[in-house]
Amino acid sequence: MTTSDNLSIAAGDLATMLGGDLVGPADTTLTGIQALDAAGPSDLSFVRSSAHANAAKASKAGAMLVARGIDLGDMPETAIIFVDNPDESLIGLLTTLRTQRFGEPETGIHPTAVIHESADLHETVTVGPNAVIESGVTIGEHTRIDAGAVISFGTTIGKRCRVGANTVIGGEGFGYISNKDTGKHTRLPHIGTVVVEDDVEIGASTGIDRAKFGVTRIGQGTKIDNLVQIGHNVNVGTNCIIVGLVGIGGSAVIEDSVVIGGQTGIADNITVGKGAQLAARGGILGNVPPGAIYVGSPAKERGQAFREFAALKRLADKSRKKS
Amino acid sequence: MTTSDNLSIAAGDLATMLGGDLVGPADTTLTGIQALDAAGPSDLSFVRSSAHANAAKASKAGAMLVARGIDLGDMPETAIIFVDNPDESLIGLLTTLRTQRFGEPETGIHPTAVIHESADLHETVTVGPNAVIESGVTIGEHTRIDAGAVISFGTTIGKRCRVGANTVIGGEGFGYISNKDTGKHTRLPHIGTVVVEDDVEIGASTGIDRAKFGVTRIGQGTKIDNLVQIGHNVNVGTNCIIVGLVGIGGSAVIEDSVVIGGQTGIADNITVGKGAQLAARGGILGNVPPGAIYVGSPAKERGQAFREFAALKRLADKSRKKS
Amino acid sequence: MTTSDNLSIAAGDLATMLGGDLVGPADTTLTGIQALDAAGPSDLSFVRSSAHANAAKASKAGAMLVARGIDLGDMPETAIIFVDNPDESLIGLLTTLRTQRFGEPETGIHPTAVIHESADLHETVTVGPNAVIESGVTIGEHTRIDAGAVISFGTTIGKRCRVGANTVIGGEGFGYISNKDTGKHTRLPHIGTVVVEDDVEIGASTGIDRAKFGVTRIGQGTKIDNLVQIGHNVNVGTNCIIVGLVGIGGSAVIEDSVVIGGQTGIADNITVGKGAQLAARGGILGNVPPGAIYVGSPAKERGQAFREFAALKRLADKSRKKS
Repeated sequence: MTTSDNLSIAAGDLATMLGGDLVGPADTTLTGIQALDAAGPSDLSFVRSSAHANAAKASKAGAMLVARGIDLGDMPETAIIFVDNPDESLIGLLTTLRTQRFGEPETGIHPTAVIHESADLHETVTVGPNAVIESGVTIGEHTRIDAGAVISFGTTIGKRCRVGANTVIGGEGFGYISNKDTGKHTRLPHIGTVVVEDDVEIGASTGIDRAKFGVTRIGQGTKIDNLVQIGHNVNVGTNCIIVGLVGIGGSAVIEDSVVIGGQTGIADNITVGKGAQLAARGGILGNVPPGAIYVGSPAKERGQAFREFAALKRLADKSRKKS
Repeated sequence: MTTSDNLSIAAGDLATMLGGDLVGPADTTLTGIQALDAAGPSDLSFVRSSAHANAAKASKAGAMLVARGIDLGDMPETAIIFVDNPDESLIGLLTTLRTQRFGEPETGIHPTAVIHESADLHETVTVGPNAVIESGVTIGEHTRIDAGAVISFGTTIGKRCRVGANTVIGGEGFGYISNKDTGKHTRLPHIGTVVVEDDVEIGASTGIDRAKFGVTRIGQGTKIDNLVQIGHNVNVGTNCIIVGLVGIGGSAVIEDSVVIGGQTGIADNITVGKGAQLAARGGILGNVPPGAIYVGSPAKERGQAFREFAALKRLADKSRKKS
Repeated sequence: MTTSDNLSIAAGDLATMLGGDLVGPADTTLTGIQALDAAGPSDLSFVRSSAHANAAKASKAGAMLVARGIDLGDMPETAIIFVDNPDESLIGLLTTLRTQRFGEPETGIHPTAVIHESADLHETVTVGPNAVIESGVTIGEHTRIDAGAVISFGTTIGKRCRVGANTVIGGEGFGYISNKDTGKHTRLPHIGTVVVEDDVEIGASTGIDRAKFGVTRIGQGTKIDNLVQIGHNVNVGTNCIIVGLVGIGGSAVIEDSVVIGGQTGIADNITVGKGAQLAARGGILGNVPPGAIYVGSPAKERGQAFREFAALKRLADKSRKKS
């Protein structure tokens, strides 16, 4: 049994629903949606530019949403549905199905949400039950704050953002002065804020701390999963992907388009260069160059990490034979 | 000082309280409860079948709850309390002590809980303060949802379940279409749901995401600790144990009776076979066979992992002597 | 671009604001606050005892708050501001700036907080919106409970503590009796409590579980970050530092002044000795001696861990050359 999919629609019906033009079998039943290389005969995939034509030709997808004007040649067993914009069609399809199943999502400010009188929310903002918006918060149009989320004082959130349930943005940063004589730690009041730019999406139960003085920033278009911890004064660039249970230490800089695998930890004050990819469970203790792929804990460049894994395995195998 | 225990009751009083028959010293004072192999002279343990008779004979427990009909022979220093069902007696004992200390647990729907009118809750369901139950949710009899938990739309929760405070079930999954040309990530609306089967228990601040299309499933009798992240379309079998801060990637399959140690991460689409045990802090990057014990990150079969740990230590020791 | 700082004040104005005596340039503009060894020409630092005089002489800080009576000799380019107590002055400064920016923090019990009638809160306690305080809870003077936090029944919290938003204290511990014959796990009702001593600070979305019978204890002055999991019957000493996403297993003992780096995991029943330091992402599987520095997973004494890292690198480099 697979629980991955219970979408079930014929390619012909899908073409009609999307206002697309079908070439190929209308009766292929589609039960899932996958990228071209992962799709099988009952999956719908999508081709948004002619750069992906070869991948489309090699794909096993049962059907494809293809941007009009792209010529894939002869693929008689594949249901090709030509549409203006495959991404928009796909998302429109899912939104329609979602509404059919669950009704229109609720919008507006739920009566149990607690909104401070000094907060400035655009009239199109949605705030779920029992969410808390503190003083001086600003939230842009079409942003959605889910149930139980807490947006602490002074935080700015842009347009079209989503903040998942029970996430806390703007909590006090973890910064103390430690007295080595007495062993006591005294909290530095954190007087900075958090800025979440447009189109950022954040999952459930994540924490983003306020800055010591300046700003903790999440750049435009970045997507953050559940249970992620982002420390004070971290500066995350645009279009990053940050997977669940990642921890980012204070004042780290994550440049644009970085991908951070689940449970990775990034030490304080580190810079991760543009477009770098950090494999899951990495331990990032030093700067990562732009575009690099880092693996392991402590993390190193992928080739080096794999050489070390292999060398250790050979060593263990050798000693096993000896004994 | 130990903070483990402040239970304090004489074996004779315990036998009376439980309606059991005492053989052996009545005046042994019991301050803790432990399994047979871990118990000491001031601990209560329990023997539920004759298969454990040898372990009972070897145990240092000061007292034992023993199922009637089991013959442990002569153990003059151990207070043996014969009862019909040791597990039930033990849990009954703790429940009684709990009520003595804290009163009866509150039941029913707290007036501050937010329950959508379309949600279907059995009349025996308990919902704590400020919990949120969204549209289309179904919850079975005797299930308890603690304070601040958020059960998102369409989720189904079975009978006798517990959902800890501030846990989020049914949050949007973390699935995006990435446009390599623009670098932008576009969210795929997740139109699936979560099904939590009977007798599942979930700790505080855990997250279980809704499926893309089908179902994210937590199988009957599975127990999940605090701060665990379970991705979209994950399929967890029955009677699994999942310890705190574990992360399970999208569409992974965890078969029945798997034990997952704390902070372990499981990659997307992996299958962990029935009865496998994953040591804490494991990094599971490939399928795990049924019954296997995996250790390390990247995780491997326990013997192999230990050989590698040992080989590395020897190598480091050797280079130390040379230098 | 750095987002670390947007403090901006001239040294002379700062001296006036703090009632201090300035020696040196009054026009140095200060934009940040750093420890002596990390400070640069636009940073304020602080010297609280003459033991730090040498570090002060070597520091590049543009200005220093110095306790009256400490003689740093001639430092003509540094703005020295003599005050009675540098720590208090610094915190007073930040508190003043914070109030200027965000107004006085709100105090008292928010009307949406849910406080059980049997809870005993000192009249100076602050409880944020939608926080939940259950039966039998005691909270000492000047303690602050943030929005959405849940303090479960029987928990005791001392004076001057802070509990971050959506944190859960006193949730049911993760303890089950497993029946090997049926595979079923039966929850042991946890009848203990949590004691949080004075001056403890806890971040957002952290979980501290109630004890099985006795007490889960957090010692005086300990500071805990976001998304930390502390299991049942854990005993944390005084003045510890516990960074984000750490997990501590049941009945572990963390002695005084231990520092635990982010994402570290500590197994059940382990003792970490006084003053030990555990590097981030450590896996602590055995007892750690007092004062030790442990690194890696499985963690070992720092020198040993570094020797193993180096030996593995040499081995991989050697095999690379051969091939």
